[in-house]
Amino acid sequence: MQVTTVQATASLPVDTRRSPYAHWRGLSREQARLEPTGFWATRQQRNRQVTLGHGFRMLDEAGNLHNLRLAAGTAQGDYRGPVFMDSDVTKWLEAVGYAAAAPGGLDASLRQAADTAIGLLAAAQQPDGYLDSYYQVVAPERRWAELNTGHELYCAGHLIQAAIAWQRYAHDDRLLQIALRVVEPINSRFGPGQPAGVPGHPEIEMALVELYRLTGRREHLELAQRFVDQRGYGLLGPNPRFGGAAYYQDRVPVREASEIEGHAVRALYLTTGVTDVYLETGEGALLEAMLRQWADFTGRKLYLTGGAGSRHSGEAFGHPYELPTERAYCETCAAIASIMWSWRLLLATGEARFADLIERTLYNGFLSGLALDGQRFFYVNPLLSHGRPEVVGRGVVERQPWFLVACCPPNVMRLLGSLDHYLATIDADGRGIQVHQYAPSVIAVDLAAGAVELRVATDYPWQGRVEITVDRAPSGPWSLQLRRPRWSVSTRLQLNGADVHSALDGHGYFVVERTWQPGDRVVLELDLHPRMTAPHPRLEAARGCVAIERGPLVYCLEQPDYPDDADVLDVALDLDLPPERLSATWQPDLLDGVMTVHARGRLTDTAAWDGATFRSLQKRRPGSPPAPRTVPLVAIPYYAWANRTPGPMRVWIPTTRPIGV
Amino acid sequence: MQVTTVQATASLPVDTRRSPYAHWRGLSREQARLEPTGFWATRQQRNRQVTLGHGFRMLDEAGNLHNLRLAAGTAQGDYRGPVFMDSDVTKWLEAVGYAAAAPGGLDASLRQAADTAIGLLAAAQQPDGYLDSYYQVVAPERRWAELNTGHELYCAGHLIQAAIAWQRYAHDDRLLQIALRVVEPINSRFGPGQPAGVPGHPEIEMALVELYRLTGRREHLELAQRFVDQRGYGLLGPNPRFGGAAYYQDRVPVREASEIEGHAVRALYLTTGVTDVYLETGEGALLEAMLRQWADFTGRKLYLTGGAGSRHSGEAFGHPYELPTERAYCETCAAIASIMWSWRLLLATGEARFADLIERTLYNGFLSGLALDGQRFFYVNPLLSHGRPEVVGRGVVERQPWFLVACCPPNVMRLLGSLDHYLATIDADGRGIQVHQYAPSVIAVDLAAGAVELRVATDYPWQGRVEITVDRAPSGPWSLQLRRPRWSVSTRLQLNGADVHSALDGHGYFVVERTWQPGDRVVLELDLHPRMTAPHPRLEAARGCVAIERGPLVYCLEQPDYPDDADVLDVALDLDLPPERLSATWQPDLLDGVMTVHARGRLTDTAAWDGATFRSLQKRRPGSPPAPRTVPLVAIPYYAWANRTPGPMRVWIPTTRPIGV
Repeated sequence: MQVTTVQATASLPVDTRRSPYAHWRGLSREQARLEPTGFWATRQQRNRQVTLGHGFRMLDEAGNLHNLRLAAGTAQGDYRGPVFMDSDVTKWLEAVGYAAAAPGGLDASLRQAADTAIGLLAAAQQPDGYLDSYYQVVAPERRWAELNTGHELYCAGHLIQAAIAWQRYAHDDRLLQIALRVVEPINSRFGPGQPAGVPGHPEIEMALVELYRLTGRREHLELAQRFVDQRGYGLLGPNPRFGGAAYYQDRVPVREASEIEGHAVRALYLTTGVTDVYLETGEGALLEAMLRQWADFTGRKLYLTGGAGSRHSGEAFGHPYELPTERAYCETCAAIASIMWSWRLLLATGEARFADLIERTLYNGFLSGLALDGQRFFYVNPLLSHGRPEVVGRGVVERQPWFLVACCPPNVMRLLGSLDHYLATIDADGRGIQVHQYAPSVIAVDLAAGAVELRVATDYPWQGRVEITVDRAPSGPWSLQLRRPRWSVSTRLQLNGADVHSALDGHGYFVVERTWQPGDRVVLELDLHPRMTAPHPRLEAARGCVAIERGPLVYCLEQPDYPDDADVLDVALDLDLPPERLSATWQPDLLDGVMTVHARGRLTDTAAWDGATFRSLQKRRPGSPPAPRTVPLVAIPYYAWANRTPGPMRVWIPTTRPIGV
Repeated sequence: MQVTTVQATASLPVDTRRSPYAHWRGLSREQARLEPTGFWATRQQRNRQVTLGHGFRMLDEAGNLHNLRLAAGTAQGDYRGPVFMDSDVTKWLEAVGYAAAAPGGLDASLRQAADTAIGLLAAAQQPDGYLDSYYQVVAPERRWAELNTGHELYCAGHLIQAAIAWQRYAHDDRLLQIALRVVEPINSRFGPGQPAGVPGHPEIEMALVELYRLTGRREHLELAQRFVDQRGYGLLGPNPRFGGAAYYQDRVPVREASEIEGHAVRALYLTTGVTDVYLETGEGALLEAMLRQWADFTGRKLYLTGGAGSRHSGEAFGHPYELPTERAYCETCAAIASIMWSWRLLLATGEARFADLIERTLYNGFLSGLALDGQRFFYVNPLLSHGRPEVVGRGVVERQPWFLVACCPPNVMRLLGSLDHYLATIDADGRGIQVHQYAPSVIAVDLAAGAVELRVATDYPWQGRVEITVDRAPSGPWSLQLRRPRWSVSTRLQLNGADVHSALDGHGYFVVERTWQPGDRVVLELDLHPRMTAPHPRLEAARGCVAIERGPLVYCLEQPDYPDDADVLDVALDLDLPPERLSATWQPDLLDGVMTVHARGRLTDTAAWDGATFRSLQKRRPGSPPAPRTVPLVAIPYYAWANRTPGPMRVWIPTTRPIGV
């Protein structure tokens, strides 16, 4: 094995501190971290205290550990579950790695569980470095022979990411030693001079770039680059179940792609890895292809919740504006992948629109994937539910403790564990600090001018006030940049009690550049008045509807807030009241504390339909229809739905008259 | 082999002439037949002259015949295609059997092709009667071991139906001899005293009841009954791809079911077979379960086109009102199955609503499955298309010559071939004649009163006038019943030039009972004024829209009728004009001759959306939006879409203001 000198590490999942084409650079957990209170810190703690332990029990029950024992030759029996079972273990380990850096570190049971998992991976690894329990146990003769469906490179990618997390956050190199050996047979098969081949499920691309960032070994970057370069030429063939090569983004070469297509998680893991390659190589054609696809994604294929991927069939993006509500797929993993991609584009460009989408996705389409109790998960995150159990296929009305295909739960765990990373950045040249996400937090960095420490205090997302106090400042000038969320209609910025005007740059940030003094205080007042949002006229599934949003939160109507004789699916928003009449109320005892939004609703009378799905307009009854019943309209944050009695839910709300956009 | 006395045969696919629980009885081709001109006769001729020959070429190319040769031991190579390839051959043979009874019979090439196929089936059959090329060639050891996915009983059912068609229409018993031997190993495995077992894909139930009707052998009926009785107890286990047993209607016992659920074709083939069992046994619990499911189907899960099954994933029915437009599945086979089911319910009950649905389905969701040239097919029949080729999964913008899963094309052929059967019935006690579908046709039956002959002349569906002339009548009284389609708002009935009033019975039929004279003429004037149809308020995918219908035809907007700068997806129907202003124009040179419908349209301006899928209402521009551009709205019959340059299409049309239902 080649000796690898691991570079001095800091605790961060994406280390762009030396990336030559990063406009901004991500911060380590030592530089930017959530304070122990607040919306996200509470969830991060629950992740450490409840979800990670639950995850290990589920991995044990589902057979993931058993499969590794089979590969190690220390157990008997059949392989269990789908081909990518190993990746659930390594994603969980990645999440535990992040938790190891939290105050107090890992508790004894989590440490023991992690030791067990790491030990099993070490024991299962073959002498040549190969490690994939499915192919070792079930089909050793088909190693590297089923790139389209086999997930070997996907599993390797997740192992590499777990290894990097343990190295950087836990300062423990056991997994890294395994991962570096795992890369060896991959290099032998796919490296320079070897036959072309790409993974059916992208993921290893971003892992290899990150490994390059950790080890400085160019071969890791080059291997990622090869997987990017060879993609889109049909090497994978048609997908056996879903037809075209578009399913796994093998229809169009990466640099020529202008549409986001196929399996959503594959598509977004690929674009994440491609953007990582750009950050290291600066190849303009890659960035341009990414920006084209991001525009296609957000302009024509994005759910209001930040959800991505509209089709159950193929778990795929659909045609433009094909965004069904009840049959939205919006896999939790796709929301996570979207956040990872937009983060890298934010670092590459310095444009707030990417942080805006991260925020939208975090608070809505990602967070809905996790129950308030931290132990149940949604795989599919629809925007409407009839509240009926599903009898065919995926998509249920209650979150589940685990899944046969269990990619989402450990993915939730690893994103929550590394969330501090997405708070802030610094300029590539150290001129200033950018705050992207508002949460109680501490930021301490060395800028070009010298050491800076900030404290962010806020009750976000419930209150719009964000106070930033400078606790330490050098003698020279530096800039503070604060994202202005696009949804904030009237935003106020104050410095030491005086309004600051015209501080907006062209990319969505307030910029205050000055020589700061300790004790300086910036107050950002975001406009949290509940607002109505209209769908694009071609968004068929939401025609005649509006959505309610407040700050970063998308709202929904859920049956438990309505009387039994008022089906929430029949509730329309009364537009004869002006939008200003939407009001918000803090409910400390509801759903762990939420701000509800209130308006006036009207109940549509469906009794006259006599069990018909359509009716001729010529057959209308004489006389005017009865005046619809009024009902108080109550909306809760979308992320919190399905934490009470299962029942109907809807995000897009019919209106009593056209909205006239 | 047991000696079987085949009862005296007549040419009809469903022989209810002796079914004890038939309210009405179906007619043979000798008793009711299409005249050689008219909407359906033209299509039937094209079926014989073009489609059947095309079908044989495709079966040859796709490997269906090759597979039978492998089973017969007369060819070398690998089995090709999915497990149910044999059923495509036998469905095609069934269609050829119907064609054999047409004037002039089969041409030489079709006869030769049929002889080839029959010969291959005979050669492939094993000495014990077993015949299924997949299990014979690929997996002989798994015979009857994969009932959930193996399709052996499904293939056997289609063979039986083909055999019956050849016996009855071509008076040729070669296939029947094969089919009777095929039933032997099935009886040995599934008959009395044998372990329980049901087919993963229903179909054999209706085939076995029909075989009982042909042979009079009760064991055939009893075997069908066993498959019905044993279903719904989870014998099939969870489906490997789509989860629950609901996928193949094995979740709820047949007599307890109240919802139509799971794979649409399986569900509707099953209900067809169950209704067949009822017609022979009269078991009330079966009919009640069928009527409950039919109400669930038509009240909550039916497409305006008659299409059935909303989901690509699992090809399944969705939740109530889950009826997406662009992602409608509406498999052509499901439309055919729906017609077969409603026909049997019509025979069981004598209620016009079943014939109404047959009509809706025939003219729309079924017929859209076939190109005007008779050589290309839709598997999936959406209600909206963005006009873009599909890159993942099924669903395309152009009809295809054939499919890897080619169930639909030969199913279209067999329904077209047997269409005469659905025209008319007689009472069980021979008191009168019921005309269900209006087409140029001749009806000649022996009623209780004596021999009757009628001639039906009409330009239906383009004109609403239907003339029925009595050519022969006995001296005693008998009744003529004419279906009044529910869509006909103002209908006029005349007898020998004088208006007939109050002739409607309670079930949707005009009844004229009298002693008829040769030369008597009844004229039915149906109201073909174009009408607007509204969706149920919970039909999310059509909110804010109406559809245009004219007579039995559902209309759609298609891009070739609009200028390039007016995307048909942006066209709204101007409701400021009264519905009476919808007008129709005969276009002899368009799409083989169609009546187009015209109105005033408005173009929605989407330019202001700047590539966003949603937009805050607070950010509306000052001033009122520009007045929308007016565009002539042109609609064509839905069945005829996608026969010109591929482009966008929509059935549900947005309106400029709420329709107020």
